[in-house]
Amino acid sequence: MSAQAAERPAPGKVVCIGLGPGDPELMSLRAHRHLMAAERIAYFRKAGHPGKARLIVEGMIPDQAEEWAMEYPVTTEIPFDSPRYRALLAEFYDGWAARLAAGALRGGVVVLCEGDPFFYGSFMHLHARLPAGLVEVVPGIPGMAGCWTATNLPITWGDDVLTVLPATLPEDDLGRRIADSDALVVMKVGRNLEKLRRALSRHGRLADAWLVEHGTMRDERVRRLTEVEGKVPYFSIVLVHGRGRRP
Amino acid sequence: MSAQAAERPAPGKVVCIGLGPGDPELMSLRAHRHLMAAERIAYFRKAGHPGKARLIVEGMIPDQAEEWAMEYPVTTEIPFDSPRYRALLAEFYDGWAARLAAGALRGGVVVLCEGDPFFYGSFMHLHARLPAGLVEVVPGIPGMAGCWTATNLPITWGDDVLTVLPATLPEDDLGRRIADSDALVVMKVGRNLEKLRRALSRHGRLADAWLVEHGTMRDERVRRLTEVEGKVPYFSIVLVHGRGRRP
Ligand SMILES: C[S@@+](CC[C@H](N)C(=O)[O-])C[C@H]1O[C@@H](n2cnc3c(N)ncnc32)[C@H](O)[C@@H]1O
Ligand SMILES: C[S@@+](CC[C@H](N)C(=O)[O-])C[C@H]1O[C@@H](n2cnc3c(N)ncnc32)[C@H](O)[C@@H]1O
Repeated sequence: MSAQAAERPAPGKVVCIGLGPGDPELMSLRAHRHLMAAERIAYFRKAGHPGKARLIVEGMIPDQAEEWAMEYPVTTEIPFDSPRYRALLAEFYDGWAARLAAGALRGGVVVLCEGDPFFYGSFMHLHARLPAGLVEVVPGIPGMAGCWTATNLPITWGDDVLTVLPATLPEDDLGRRIADSDALVVMKVGRNLEKLRRALSRHGRLADAWLVEHGTMRDERVRRLTEVEGKVPYFSIVLVHGRGRRP
Repeated sequence: MSAQAAERPAPGKVVCIGLGPGDPELMSLRAHRHLMAAERIAYFRKAGHPGKARLIVEGMIPDQAEEWAMEYPVTTEIPFDSPRYRALLAEFYDGWAARLAAGALRGGVVVLCEGDPFFYGSFMHLHARLPAGLVEVVPGIPGMAGCWTATNLPITWGDDVLTVLPATLPEDDLGRRIADSDALVVMKVGRNLEKLRRALSRHGRLADAWLVEHGTMRDERVRRLTEVEGKVPYFSIVLVHGRGRRP
């Protein structure tokens, strides 16, 4: 082997690790192993924010690791269904997919993701752009599982049907699906709270609904939705527990 | 402090740990910490079977730990909606709840659960019978997250609605819900496969469906459902991935 070849690091992978709902002790042993060995660590963030995934691993980043902040070019300034928004985001994902691929060839990159990467995660847009053999995904505990555990009540029993809804849907769609589910998880609540509250109320499920903010994080807050007033953060989930059959 | 008090162990808890989908490295750091410190380890199993949760931790049980196998009194011999089935199971759960509570007072018991305990888990029936202050639940990666990761495709994007269905539902219920979902997870497939296949086919989703057997376990098998013939094991999940909006 030539001296040059010996110095070149073995090519690695882009490993996206699901970090779980927020409490760092809820990451998997495998996610932890990848994190401890990381030479390059990438994560999404909004400009001016630390990034939720990065916050979860605060104090756990190995000294030698380089950090790559993947900063969204736009968030809510432009309507997300406009062609301009799509084009900007596509360019952003294209650029980072190329940089991550280069990082993999130089030895590997670990991408942080809160919850589970394949469950409404932004990493999916990079995954779709990277060669299959270059990527590995480590599943994580989805945020919703941290949230229902925080309510200390099971989400589904026996034959219960669970519907997971993004609160971004139109009010009528939310209502129709609320009316037809045993158990409910509503994601991306944030500014959609009042619309969601109306839809739950119209279908008689408001009294059964719980709101969990920052589930399993230091500032976790668990309340019945009827007790909630005012704004709630983006990292909020609304839950209605199933009742199933019980011996 | 009297000598007698000093010898009595500090009362502990009944800690139910979610072990994740099957690969032991997918348990959380917290689940692992509880497992390593356990003095008593309880798990469900069917008579004559090792128990799925117990299999996941094979080789990881601390030497000093006592094992408590909670063996189901009946499984499929009696119709599960008969009063006799309910009575037998209620007695079984009552008895084990009392024994676990006693174990907690003697220093603590760790209960093993595959996946996430509050997501269609049997532990919920013990949880409902134990005093709230005596129990702690550690969430886990649900089996479905291990399974969709095994297909190497995201399950939900953007505004996708995800429906989780038990395959035990009547064919018409399955069909109606299949027709009205972006992404689908079907649990408890096993003997319900042919019924489910008909319902998927009737609503034009058969070609998009995947079957994952023993996701993340050593004998994991991932196939398109159209390629599956014959029987599948109880630990099988059918998935239809959402397609969302993508920049
Ligand atoms: C873009 S999705 C990402 C989901 C993530 N990949 C997962 O597996 O949970 C962001 C949404 O997840 C939900 N979420 C995730 N973790 C949460 C937590 N710990 N507490 C409350 N909500 C959470 C919120 O509804 C938030 O709007
Ligand atoms: C009683 S439920 C328990 C679910 C578990 N608590 C969880 O969080 O996944 C059992 C069903 O879970 C599904 N399941 C769980 N883990 C699985 C895996 N690793 N591979 C395939 N199916 C799995 C199967 O559909 C099985 O019939």
